[in-house]
Amino acid sequence: VEQEENEYIINEFDGMHSADISTVMEGLSAEDCKYILELLNPSVGADVISEIEDDTRNNFLTLFTPQELSKYMDNTDSDDAADILNDMPVKVREEVLASMNNNEKVQYIIDLLHYEEDCAGGLMAKELVKANINWNVSQCIEEVRRQGQNVDKIYTVYVVDDHDILLGRISMKKLLIANDLTKVADLYEPEIAKVYSYLDEEEVADIMQHYDLEVIPVINVQGRLLGRITIDDVVDVITEQAEKDQQAMSGLSEDVEETDSLIAMARARLPWLIVGMSGGLLGANFLGGFEEELSRIPAMAFFIPLITATGGNVGIQSSTIVVQSLASGGFQGSAMNRYLRVLVIAILNGLTLAALVYGFNMIFSDNHQLAIVVSFALFSVIMIASFMGTITPLVLSKFGINPALASGPFITTCNDLIGLGVYFMVAKALLH
Amino acid sequence: VEQEENEYIINEFDGMHSADISTVMEGLSAEDCKYILELLNPSVGADVISEIEDDTRNNFLTLFTPQELSKYMDNTDSDDAADILNDMPVKVREEVLASMNNNEKVQYIIDLLHYEEDCAGGLMAKELVKANINWNVSQCIEEVRRQGQNVDKIYTVYVVDDHDILLGRISMKKLLIANDLTKVADLYEPEIAKVYSYLDEEEVADIMQHYDLEVIPVINVQGRLLGRITIDDVVDVITEQAEKDQQAMSGLSEDVEETDSLIAMARARLPWLIVGMSGGLLGANFLGGFEEELSRIPAMAFFIPLITATGGNVGIQSSTIVVQSLASGGFQGSAMNRYLRVLVIAILNGLTLAALVYGFNMIFSDNHQLAIVVSFALFSVIMIASFMGTITPLVLSKFGINPALASGPFITTCNDLIGLGVYFMVAKALLH
Repeated sequence: VEQEENEYIINEFDGMHSADISTVMEGLSAEDCKYILELLNPSVGADVISEIEDDTRNNFLTLFTPQELSKYMDNTDSDDAADILNDMPVKVREEVLASMNNNEKVQYIIDLLHYEEDCAGGLMAKELVKANINWNVSQCIEEVRRQGQNVDKIYTVYVVDDHDILLGRISMKKLLIANDLTKVADLYEPEIAKVYSYLDEEEVADIMQHYDLEVIPVINVQGRLLGRITIDDVVDVITEQAEKDQQAMSGLSEDVEETDSLIAMARARLPWLIVGMSGGLLGANFLGGFEEELSRIPAMAFFIPLITATGGNVGIQSSTIVVQSLASGGFQGSAMNRYLRVLVIAILNGLTLAALVYGFNMIFSDNHQLAIVVSFALFSVIMIASFMGTITPLVLSKFGINPALASGPFITTCNDLIGLGVYFMVAKALLH
Repeated sequence: VEQEENEYIINEFDGMHSADISTVMEGLSAEDCKYILELLNPSVGADVISEIEDDTRNNFLTLFTPQELSKYMDNTDSDDAADILNDMPVKVREEVLASMNNNEKVQYIIDLLHYEEDCAGGLMAKELVKANINWNVSQCIEEVRRQGQNVDKIYTVYVVDDHDILLGRISMKKLLIANDLTKVADLYEPEIAKVYSYLDEEEVADIMQHYDLEVIPVINVQGRLLGRITIDDVVDVITEQAEKDQQAMSGLSEDVEETDSLIAMARARLPWLIVGMSGGLLGANFLGGFEEELSRIPAMAFFIPLITATGGNVGIQSSTIVVQSLASGGFQGSAMNRYLRVLVIAILNGLTLAALVYGFNMIFSDNHQLAIVVSFALFSVIMIASFMGTITPLVLSKFGINPALASGPFITTCNDLIGLGVYFMVAKALLH
């Protein structure tokens, strides 16, 4: 790029898929990105801009004037264009819209800018092919020809009445096979899945996954057809949600990536580390109350890591299972049944581990009293951590908080403290 | 169901989507499932069988005779049929195939039974519409009409030569708009993404996600068109992978769900709990070597949970970030650069936390020497845990092991032990 060998670059990128060009550009500086984009034709450039990662895009798009940007936005699908413009200052956004030539697209984008990014309205594109219920097949094909110019992938033709109320759909296969004079009314499938524009994006993903759909129409409360959501956007929603859950489970507080700035990375990690550390300091304070016992039986300290680690592990396991059954549509059966099951599993595993530790201590140590204290405390910690791990994600999800947080550091810290408490209470009760 | 009110059931399920019927059936006994299936017409029944969860399905399908099953398999897509038959004993499978009426489908299924479930061949369906490069559009439409009987969703028409070598594709939109006498050779797009049958399913998912595809053709090493993979199967792969990662991170050893049997649940949790417990016992042994120090300065024990918890949290954060950048296509830049970044972030966060703890200890305790030991140990533990958390997923992924395990209990246990070691070594060095 540095030697600006235009011919070479054009040849290299010619025939390359826009998704691959955008991957290459993610490794380059903002100036180089701009330089390359200007060598591509605007429609390929528009695809590259929609496919490139947000951070890289926001970096190099600031180098363009609004007039230059409008050229690309004319060629971008309305949903991607709205997302891109949403990341820009209001003034730039208005200038870009004012400079665009494709008036239909401008109207589409303005419609879409109303919606929150994480609802069905924020995911949908306005480009689709619709047919009136009173038409026949040849009118329908004429419309596909006309509207098809703007629509990359048609998937299906939506059937609406005179007031744009969504009635059903006709598959491309049926249109292709049907006689030209057949009425749309005789051909269309009236029962189709659809979503309201305000529906949460994760529920949209669930519905499309449940019914194996590659596209779903979006309607408003009156039933008017507003747009459609395609599966590629939903796949991104699913992937993002999985990443968010992983981050919640591992105590990262923002959406960070390894390539983010050092400060952003350090900041994303710090909050939960401080929570964990505060827990540790509370624990230290708590243990301070048992200084006398500890100096009399220093061996008690030996088993602190065992107790806290096991409590943490059991809690994370329990909550992850609940999180996954919340995500996949829920546990069948009563709440009572659920807690009973958790109880039985906790007893089974608690007894196994307590027995193992007791056996170990009987063999390698001669303090039988301590062996009993440790095993009893371990069993109690497993019971409590199972219960906490089960109930926390349920409570979080009831309050609309991501339940995956329940497998994260906050709960581990709580379990550490509870574990210490149980251990020393049991010790105090049994050793006095 | 118990009163066997057939009329009522038929009315209730009539017009319901097969995906919803299968959800209802997941709450019922195997006998009831069989009873309902027999009331539905075989093609709806076939859809229900492919959409229902594996466990439920394997339960009630054993109640059917091979002859009854063959009726459903005749109406099932080849990829789903192959998956279902793969779960059955070989003898039943052969009997089902022998009783089927649709010979083309039988051949499809037999072809698919060769492939491992987790490669492209195991995901693909044989049902597709293909056209010869020498045909014209009207021959092509004739073929869509003929082959379209067996194919639910066509998506696209694949173009092959006389030896079935995949050359490209024609979109339904182009077919619909084109003149009847146009040659396929003049209309088709020669450049399409495709995958080899042996490709791993996660790589298939990456490719389809990267290029925003809803369907991808599968070829063999000679380039012959074998089948196609649709996005709905890939969405399942992505969801499953996310669940597997969550389970690896939380120390569950098998693919369990909350509804599994109590024994299966307890068994899935036990192995990592035992690993964690063994770590705890090793820690106890290690601390045993410092009994003298502990009885002299019992306050040293107070900070054990702080050190182990922080080490665990830092390690999990570091490894999750690396796991996510492995999943999303990798870190751009050299290995050296990566480690330098990790080092800087660890120093930033290590200094912050060490300073906070030092401040706390100066305010609330009067043992300055211990305050220095704890802060110094905390800093060292953060440095080491960051490094371990970064390198472990890279090593695991190099050996083909799921890197998400690096955020799991094994690493937490290792970090606990390293943390204890560092703490007491530092103490020994500074307090003597």
